[in-house]
Amino acid sequence: MFESAAQVHKIDKATFKAEEAKLREALLDAQFDLIEQKRFAVLIVLAGIDGAGKSAALARLNEWLDPRHVETAVIDEPSPEEAARPPHWRYWRALPAKGKIGIFVGSWYREAFAGSALGGGEEGQLERALAAIARFETMLADEGLLVIKLWLHLSRADQKKRLKEIDSIPGGGRHVVEHRWMHKNYEKLMPVMQNIVRLTSSGDAPWVVVPSADEEYRDLMIGQTVLAAMRKRLDSPPPPKVAAAPVVVAGLDRKTALDALDLSAKLDKARYEKELARYQLRLAELTDAKAFRDVALVVAFEGTDAAGKGGTIRRLTCALDPRKVKVYPIAAPTDEEKAQPYLWRFWRHIPAKGQIAIFDRTWYGRVLVERVEGFCSEADWLRAYAEINDFEEQLLESGVILAKLWLAIGKDEQLRRFQDREKVPYKRYKITKEDWRNREKWDAYTQAIGDMVDRTSTDRAPWTLVSSEDKNWARVQVLKTLSDRLEAAL
Amino acid sequence: MFESAAQVHKIDKATFKAEEAKLREALLDAQFDLIEQKRFAVLIVLAGIDGAGKSAALARLNEWLDPRHVETAVIDEPSPEEAARPPHWRYWRALPAKGKIGIFVGSWYREAFAGSALGGGEEGQLERALAAIARFETMLADEGLLVIKLWLHLSRADQKKRLKEIDSIPGGGRHVVEHRWMHKNYEKLMPVMQNIVRLTSSGDAPWVVVPSADEEYRDLMIGQTVLAAMRKRLDSPPPPKVAAAPVVVAGLDRKTALDALDLSAKLDKARYEKELARYQLRLAELTDAKAFRDVALVVAFEGTDAAGKGGTIRRLTCALDPRKVKVYPIAAPTDEEKAQPYLWRFWRHIPAKGQIAIFDRTWYGRVLVERVEGFCSEADWLRAYAEINDFEEQLLESGVILAKLWLAIGKDEQLRRFQDREKVPYKRYKITKEDWRNREKWDAYTQAIGDMVDRTSTDRAPWTLVSSEDKNWARVQVLKTLSDRLEAAL
Repeated sequence: MFESAAQVHKIDKATFKAEEAKLREALLDAQFDLIEQKRFAVLIVLAGIDGAGKSAALARLNEWLDPRHVETAVIDEPSPEEAARPPHWRYWRALPAKGKIGIFVGSWYREAFAGSALGGGEEGQLERALAAIARFETMLADEGLLVIKLWLHLSRADQKKRLKEIDSIPGGGRHVVEHRWMHKNYEKLMPVMQNIVRLTSSGDAPWVVVPSADEEYRDLMIGQTVLAAMRKRLDSPPPPKVAAAPVVVAGLDRKTALDALDLSAKLDKARYEKELARYQLRLAELTDAKAFRDVALVVAFEGTDAAGKGGTIRRLTCALDPRKVKVYPIAAPTDEEKAQPYLWRFWRHIPAKGQIAIFDRTWYGRVLVERVEGFCSEADWLRAYAEINDFEEQLLESGVILAKLWLAIGKDEQLRRFQDREKVPYKRYKITKEDWRNREKWDAYTQAIGDMVDRTSTDRAPWTLVSSEDKNWARVQVLKTLSDRLEAAL
Repeated sequence: MFESAAQVHKIDKATFKAEEAKLREALLDAQFDLIEQKRFAVLIVLAGIDGAGKSAALARLNEWLDPRHVETAVIDEPSPEEAARPPHWRYWRALPAKGKIGIFVGSWYREAFAGSALGGGEEGQLERALAAIARFETMLADEGLLVIKLWLHLSRADQKKRLKEIDSIPGGGRHVVEHRWMHKNYEKLMPVMQNIVRLTSSGDAPWVVVPSADEEYRDLMIGQTVLAAMRKRLDSPPPPKVAAAPVVVAGLDRKTALDALDLSAKLDKARYEKELARYQLRLAELTDAKAFRDVALVVAFEGTDAAGKGGTIRRLTCALDPRKVKVYPIAAPTDEEKAQPYLWRFWRHIPAKGQIAIFDRTWYGRVLVERVEGFCSEADWLRAYAEINDFEEQLLESGVILAKLWLAIGKDEQLRRFQDREKVPYKRYKITKEDWRNREKWDAYTQAIGDMVDRTSTDRAPWTLVSSEDKNWARVQVLKTLSDRLEAAL
């Protein structure tokens, strides 16, 4: 993997100065076009061996580019805010928006390395991490990011020299123990680094290995690589992606998971009040328990229009400590959200440990409304199932308790409620022309819901379908589901 | 994952007959267009739970389609010929050519399941297998295959009924023990199957879950899914793929791994003859050893034009038992090979255990001549590095010993040899106009070679660069490399 980089690569000062002047101008040009077009974001990943000069290269890029549109993320020890959330959270919050350039130093590769046997991880942990990284980067590329990955390499002798230099500067010796260990294990590190580069080099996001013994050579190569990649994408946008094998057809009888629901389920008032109080108390206790401080709760509400999500959410929140809970109603994305990959606007609201996030409509919008209304391409919503599964897996892995609730009513009941809303003045704001339009696409939505449940309900992150024609029944079911889930997890 | 499929799905005989008649005609129409267009192949994967009727569905598809253009592969126990080769070999040999429909029953999913904890595998084995499958299927899709994956599902009760039926028919009870075990473990199987479906459902090759309790329902759903997918691809070919991030730029100083080679290395005649005899004997002994019966040897020769691959290969083969060795000169692909994914024409020649395959030019053509001459798109050769790494990993995993040799000469030496070939009558067939044309692209080839070594040389499958200006030196180096490799492995 590092054969070319292992050669001696040098450049003299005069050549560097001449090349640098040209490069700088061209880079600023490209950056200006990027800002103007605002069609995509650039993500530069700087990784590689210790001592190769990731920080110095970062400084140089910031010197060459207009730093107002460059966002830098140095992935070192997580901040307390980051440590309290799933590991991927901090990558998502640092992603550059369209028109911006993001530079990640370290990034998910540092974390993957820590999972190698050499880094103290378990058997197979590195391979799993690398497979997840490959899927993550493919998703970023599919979402339109230009991903440029630069692996900085040094030979054993050059590393020794460089680490000595670093350790001798005042304040530079911070990592001296780590440096010594890294260098001592150079020969063992190489196969691990080879594996990392090999298993995460894809057509979507290939690695470029940068020989880093000579600083000018290193920086010029980085700059020219970034320039070439940006220029190409700026000058020739890729054609839209087409789904390779769109083989999702409606079931012949159009029966879905929803058909198993008994919509006639009911709870009388006395029973309702008793059960409601019981589960509200239970939820309050569970979320106040000491063990809850080590987990977080994410509740995803979806459902038929007019199924009563709002009322149910109110019954839930009033049982919870308001300092711990936040409700996120998901409407059309903001400009800022539109400039980011799809899942970004959900990642930003993932709660810290001990906290609760309630989503009123969720990331499933992509495979529901966006699919049915054609707001995204077929290729986009088809890949979204796998992306959502990966997203939820990352939440679960880090100890988030996830509940996905579908509140269901039948077509007749919906009509009754729509008409009711139009009649009652204080309910009128709840019904719009759009609701009526969606209703016309009832069958398409039903199909999309069925596919969604089939493709994203798993043992670890199951969908709970709740019959909501009787609101009492629905509310108690939801509270009971959450109580049970918390009880099992704590 | 199986929520919709868990519902009762039935279709009455009259509806089935009417729908079947329409479907049959439409399927034959689509198949005829496929044969006419010859643009792509269709691969139908039938997988799922035991007893769901994979074989019956296969029979029905064969009844509906024109069986002359359907190729069926039932992946059960491997034949002796298959067992002697890497596990993927049998999938490759059964792949449908362009214009054909291939139906795989069982396939790589049967094997992946055997690697689950429930199937007796080790920790993490299933996840690794599924990640490899996802990469494999993405490659097939990238190579233009239409991949349609159907997962046949049964509820526990329906499975019980069906397995009883199967076990009661004469000859059907072959798998009665296995069936009983599968059924007894239904509840444990479900999460494993969920994982399989979840982790291998991609935008390129999504699963369709088929409720299989009612046979007519099952078959009709399968037929309509196949029809819809074929029709869509036939009527609207996908746009060409564009490399998302083509960030491979030439190193600034154009130095590659080749620059580390000392081209002046020499061996005098006496020493050459002694060493040649020594290593030929050693190779003969090693490949005749009993331990060699459990492995296979694949030697990949690449090199500069006129570097002397032919002569070196002759010195190698004359040391080996001719019953064991085959030499494959790789030229332009045949029509049959062009109708298959790129790696197919190499997979077909992978040797059985105890055998030796020598490739004169190899799968690296894609990232060398095809890249430089523009015979494939940038997106194609960029993804080829990862595909080649996966391919070689599969060989190594199954015990193949792999040697990759680059025979290198300098530009001046090549000119001398070209001129010499033109002068000497019996050598004249060895030099063509194409050789001179390639020579004009020396720099582009050098860059491609450097990238190839950087991206595909790993600890387990390293490139060996051999200085070949002195033929004696080169031949001994090659034989020594192979001897050492065999000695280390046996």
